[in-house]
Amino acid sequence: MIEKIGIVGGGQLGRMLTQAAQPLGFQVTVLDSGENAPAAQVGAGQVFGELTDPEAIAKLAEQCDVLTWEIEHIDSDILIDLERRGHDIQPSPHTLKAIQDKYEQKKTLQAAGLPVPPFRELPGRSWEEGGLRSFREQILRPLGEKVIVKTRTGGYDGRGNHVFDGDLDALRQAVGTEWSNLYVEQIVPFQTELSVISARDRRGNVVTYPTVETVHEDNICHMVMCPPDLDPDLSAKAQELAHETMKLLDGAGVFAIEMFAVEGKVLINEIAPRVHNSGHHTIEANQTSQFEQHIRAITGMPLGSTAQRTPAAVMINILGGRTEPLDRLGMDAVLTLPDTHLHFYGKSARAGRKIGHITVLGDTVNVASALAQHARAALKA
Amino acid sequence: MIEKIGIVGGGQLGRMLTQAAQPLGFQVTVLDSGENAPAAQVGAGQVFGELTDPEAIAKLAEQCDVLTWEIEHIDSDILIDLERRGHDIQPSPHTLKAIQDKYEQKKTLQAAGLPVPPFRELPGRSWEEGGLRSFREQILRPLGEKVIVKTRTGGYDGRGNHVFDGDLDALRQAVGTEWSNLYVEQIVPFQTELSVISARDRRGNVVTYPTVETVHEDNICHMVMCPPDLDPDLSAKAQELAHETMKLLDGAGVFAIEMFAVEGKVLINEIAPRVHNSGHHTIEANQTSQFEQHIRAITGMPLGSTAQRTPAAVMINILGGRTEPLDRLGMDAVLTLPDTHLHFYGKSARAGRKIGHITVLGDTVNVASALAQHARAALKA
Repeated sequence: MIEKIGIVGGGQLGRMLTQAAQPLGFQVTVLDSGENAPAAQVGAGQVFGELTDPEAIAKLAEQCDVLTWEIEHIDSDILIDLERRGHDIQPSPHTLKAIQDKYEQKKTLQAAGLPVPPFRELPGRSWEEGGLRSFREQILRPLGEKVIVKTRTGGYDGRGNHVFDGDLDALRQAVGTEWSNLYVEQIVPFQTELSVISARDRRGNVVTYPTVETVHEDNICHMVMCPPDLDPDLSAKAQELAHETMKLLDGAGVFAIEMFAVEGKVLINEIAPRVHNSGHHTIEANQTSQFEQHIRAITGMPLGSTAQRTPAAVMINILGGRTEPLDRLGMDAVLTLPDTHLHFYGKSARAGRKIGHITVLGDTVNVASALAQHARAALKA
Repeated sequence: MIEKIGIVGGGQLGRMLTQAAQPLGFQVTVLDSGENAPAAQVGAGQVFGELTDPEAIAKLAEQCDVLTWEIEHIDSDILIDLERRGHDIQPSPHTLKAIQDKYEQKKTLQAAGLPVPPFRELPGRSWEEGGLRSFREQILRPLGEKVIVKTRTGGYDGRGNHVFDGDLDALRQAVGTEWSNLYVEQIVPFQTELSVISARDRRGNVVTYPTVETVHEDNICHMVMCPPDLDPDLSAKAQELAHETMKLLDGAGVFAIEMFAVEGKVLINEIAPRVHNSGHHTIEANQTSQFEQHIRAITGMPLGSTAQRTPAAVMINILGGRTEPLDRLGMDAVLTLPDTHLHFYGKSARAGRKIGHITVLGDTVNVASALAQHARAALKA
């Protein structure tokens, strides 16, 4: 009987997971190094420590009946070891390990016959050992000039990605020396970026949320729109690919399958093995939020309906920097808008940091996204 | 600029107010004497003390920019004094004082021309001093044999109410000696009990939620249904009466106006100057929950839409005693039902205590209430 849930990471995702777990009667403890972590502010217990600290993670596991995470940059070997020692960890730490290396992730998807953008290992063992000389022949000839060098592990919100701009020396400078931690992907001329939030329960049942369109700015998810501005056949294809992808992933929990719609096809871009920014609108828009869904999944409860309550839903992120969370005029302007919902995470407004989001429900994406953008602009006034 | 909210009382209402305040960026502190108060479990700060302790209430007021309450059994004179000393208290403590005495409350409603069940002061000054002898003549002759003796202040969930069963001596025994704190009401043969959750912002704007039907069991609110099983004209009349009643109440916040539908009329039964059990369904059913509405109102923000998302909503209380909150089979049975939402309050399951509620949304009250009752029965299994 699961009563206590441990979450590695106590940021906004851990906070919203905590808020979903409490009404169901669960106690949550998070691992986080920061004082006043967003999840701790809403009543989660906190083990203080780094996400990479084996002892801290073990301490969290000891206190909980099931362990999960809100961020994938954890040492998965620690989790695999804890699982071997009898701890219940969801989803599977082996899945986490497989996903953490984006190159291995892509190879796994490709091996399963799933469509992904063309990608390659870097040639040679370093820029010096022939890498630079071979780059043009082994990378640019097959993939074309539009490529991006990505870090295999540890990348986040676009950090660690380097677009090739025709100057190999500049690329070499930009990526630095982590040669073995890099691979190359073709930059696909996508029309739309998509995401399908998916969940599996402990009995193997899988549900997916309606396909959403994501818009990135400076590599950070900026806005999420449902339904996407897309041929319904492609939206359905994205659902199908999400189900296919879920077959490759073990364990219970929520996953975000990010995709590109490009030239009448859908390609899988990346898998996030956790609740995701592209699912925040589900708090108000869907019968079961992605956060409650994850809690249901990892605790062995049945999954809830993913049906959407309104024809359209739009989520827009609030980034730190110019935003004052509690500016009276800005708040008023937002809260007078119809079916508009404000979520602050209790984080300081450091520039570029995700400190909150706004969700607008409505009849059309056009109106909802106009209101969402108006709302965000008002907060910055 | 309001940033910190103080709530007198840290039970389930304070808990749900806290959960509504956090995403809007507010910090909440509650006054409660209990360790592990439901509101403190979800991140509210806590001042430990009795709700009747002037020093504890003053301490809470010092820590907060605005003070409100989740329970009306506070010494309103303390609040009036704190307001005089410059503290921002919402709604008005004078309104609280006027409402606390149910006899004065009824007189105020009657003086304003609003319909209430017939009521009377008790005759004489005690049973001994002529009260008993005059009861038949001064009470039973004008009001009829179906009357209930009620405590003027401090009653809750039916406690302090005594139905006259024809035996005056038995009545005398039952009510004890608090003669001056009693009055008598006619028991009206209502078809339906109604409630209209209403809110006023600081600028005087008033909104009401759709009229709901409440069903009581053993004097405790058991089930809430929206829309009520009622002539739509009467439902509209209830809305009108709620607006008229709000004119008599000062200050910002949520009020519950409880009514009887009887013989084609609507009578006002009682006003609760706070968020209320008959509004719990608004968390999922309405664009703005009663809890967010109260937070918006007391902090000077604009009120949100009270529009309901689905044609029908039903809320059923979970009472302690036979219910195991985390019984796996029970939880599973509930969570497989469509659009069914479980809320536990983090309270121990003492018999008869409200420890949680279930909300079911749907197309008809018939289906939603059947599912709600099925869900509650499953939790008891």
